[in-house]
Amino acid sequence: MTTSLFGLPEQAAHERVLLATDPATGLKAILAVHSTARGPAFGGCRLWHYDTELAALNDALRLSQGMSLKNALADLPFGGGKAVILKPEGQFDRPALFAAFGRAVQSLNGAYITAEDVGTTTADMRGMQAHTPFVSGIPREGAFGGDPSPKTAWGVFVSIQAGVRLVLGRKSLDGVRVALQGLGAVGWHLAEFLHQAGAKLVVADVDAAKVERAVAQLGAVAVPVGEILAADVDVLAPCALGASLNEQTVPALRAKLVAGAANNQLATPADGDALQRRGICYLPDYLVNAGGIISVAREYRGEGEEAAVMAEVSKIGERVEELLQRVQVADST
Amino acid sequence: MTTSLFGLPEQAAHERVLLATDPATGLKAILAVHSTARGPAFGGCRLWHYDTELAALNDALRLSQGMSLKNALADLPFGGGKAVILKPEGQFDRPALFAAFGRAVQSLNGAYITAEDVGTTTADMRGMQAHTPFVSGIPREGAFGGDPSPKTAWGVFVSIQAGVRLVLGRKSLDGVRVALQGLGAVGWHLAEFLHQAGAKLVVADVDAAKVERAVAQLGAVAVPVGEILAADVDVLAPCALGASLNEQTVPALRAKLVAGAANNQLATPADGDALQRRGICYLPDYLVNAGGIISVAREYRGEGEEAAVMAEVSKIGERVEELLQRVQVADST
Repeated sequence: MTTSLFGLPEQAAHERVLLATDPATGLKAILAVHSTARGPAFGGCRLWHYDTELAALNDALRLSQGMSLKNALADLPFGGGKAVILKPEGQFDRPALFAAFGRAVQSLNGAYITAEDVGTTTADMRGMQAHTPFVSGIPREGAFGGDPSPKTAWGVFVSIQAGVRLVLGRKSLDGVRVALQGLGAVGWHLAEFLHQAGAKLVVADVDAAKVERAVAQLGAVAVPVGEILAADVDVLAPCALGASLNEQTVPALRAKLVAGAANNQLATPADGDALQRRGICYLPDYLVNAGGIISVAREYRGEGEEAAVMAEVSKIGERVEELLQRVQVADST
Repeated sequence: MTTSLFGLPEQAAHERVLLATDPATGLKAILAVHSTARGPAFGGCRLWHYDTELAALNDALRLSQGMSLKNALADLPFGGGKAVILKPEGQFDRPALFAAFGRAVQSLNGAYITAEDVGTTTADMRGMQAHTPFVSGIPREGAFGGDPSPKTAWGVFVSIQAGVRLVLGRKSLDGVRVALQGLGAVGWHLAEFLHQAGAKLVVADVDAAKVERAVAQLGAVAVPVGEILAADVDVLAPCALGASLNEQTVPALRAKLVAGAANNQLATPADGDALQRRGICYLPDYLVNAGGIISVAREYRGEGEEAAVMAEVSKIGERVEELLQRVQVADST
């Protein structure tokens, strides 16, 4: 864990980090603007319980830096930013909390644009509109917008499709075994897409109700949370929180392909090397999970339309193919 | 040392803390807005080398919280804020650094107004004017303005005068022995005022040239830096950095009155209790050293005029008298 305030060790410093509070609502938020070189810093807002404030800062710094990479790879005219709200203890007035957060977003004058992320909803984003225009991911009457999680899931789905073709050498997902770690907003949509394509699902989630639903509706096999990463499958899709690929878990992996929705799946760059040594193909999270930011960015720019957004998100699959072909050429020369 | 990011332990959180960087100039700055309840947060900008970033954050949090108190006690329509710039290692382009800092100040839209503090100059403030109007302490042709340190020194001087009358029971400063810790911008002016009033000076500073000048020009007696706090004097004036009154130094003090320009002179509240138990009268730093902020606040509001500012700063002496009379009434009942 870094104790640097301004950025991650051995990385370029963040342009700005705002620590914002609001005593009336209990808001404590960290708004991290990694870079505005490509345009305003665009990235979601996470509501989460952290053990320490420094852990929250570290998460905000890592996630916002990741957004610079993600937005650039997705060819979006936006820089990288991300916000975390430290979840207040006990009961709290959620609309008031997000109103205060909206004012903090507004105080950055558009250097940062927010949207949904882990723990935040379309209702939270809608509530912020009275306080700042720098928010996206809001369902609109007769216009494109709202929850980006199906688009994130679609991007991961087309990435898995591409990986299954090029890495596993199979023509379709029919009968391909996929382990899903996490059945949250994105994980659930991904499970549905995979099921519809004929994949056999192995799932785990801390929420037993979600697992039961996946078993009942999608024919999934449930395994305990502690066993999902080592499940005997072809594809592993980490869709929970970050750092699931680490020195404990990588040696136990049995999948040949890893592609999921979670951010910062690799605990450290060394874990990427370890995957490679084991012959496991890891599709970078910031490449495959860009569907959500593509969606809210289109919505924000007023360029949204369901078919056009889906077409743009589908390009993630083409990028994955291109990446894999380059790697194969490099390996064979 | 706190590791809290949002404020000091057991204190109200800061409204906002901005961590700002600029790779081109090497800027790393912390702009702490403690409170805007009374008005924009007004307080100086320090340029200093800190051992760690967390130490810099802690300093910014303590100093800005102190400014809320100082500005309120000085009856100024401003809240409390303060900024620290982490001094870049080695050579750096000073005008470029302060230009980048000025842009960071500007990004807060007037929630924070800056001015000189330890390590920064009128030239630094003037250079920022091209980037933000939220800066004061700038010499102006035909108008009041500029270096606030003589005003800070004047406020400390009139406080010592009041303390000498009410605590030491002496009619004037003539022959009163005063130990000055630090001969920086404020310390030097204070030494001159005290010398003119007939006080006998004992001085120490890490800069030998300043000490020599005080010996030659003001008839001061020089003592090593490590001995100044325990000097055999009537009055001790801490004018260096904070926390000079701590559990090591307080037992060795020989002065009966402590009044100086440094911020945060007490390392902890317990050190104030220790002074009281020893029968030493400590005039709170945030009361006596408000002359500088009164000066830059008047300048900022365009209400400056040398005589009017000096009259307002002189009121600090009246406040000290009032405080001491209240304490004496409380002690006798």
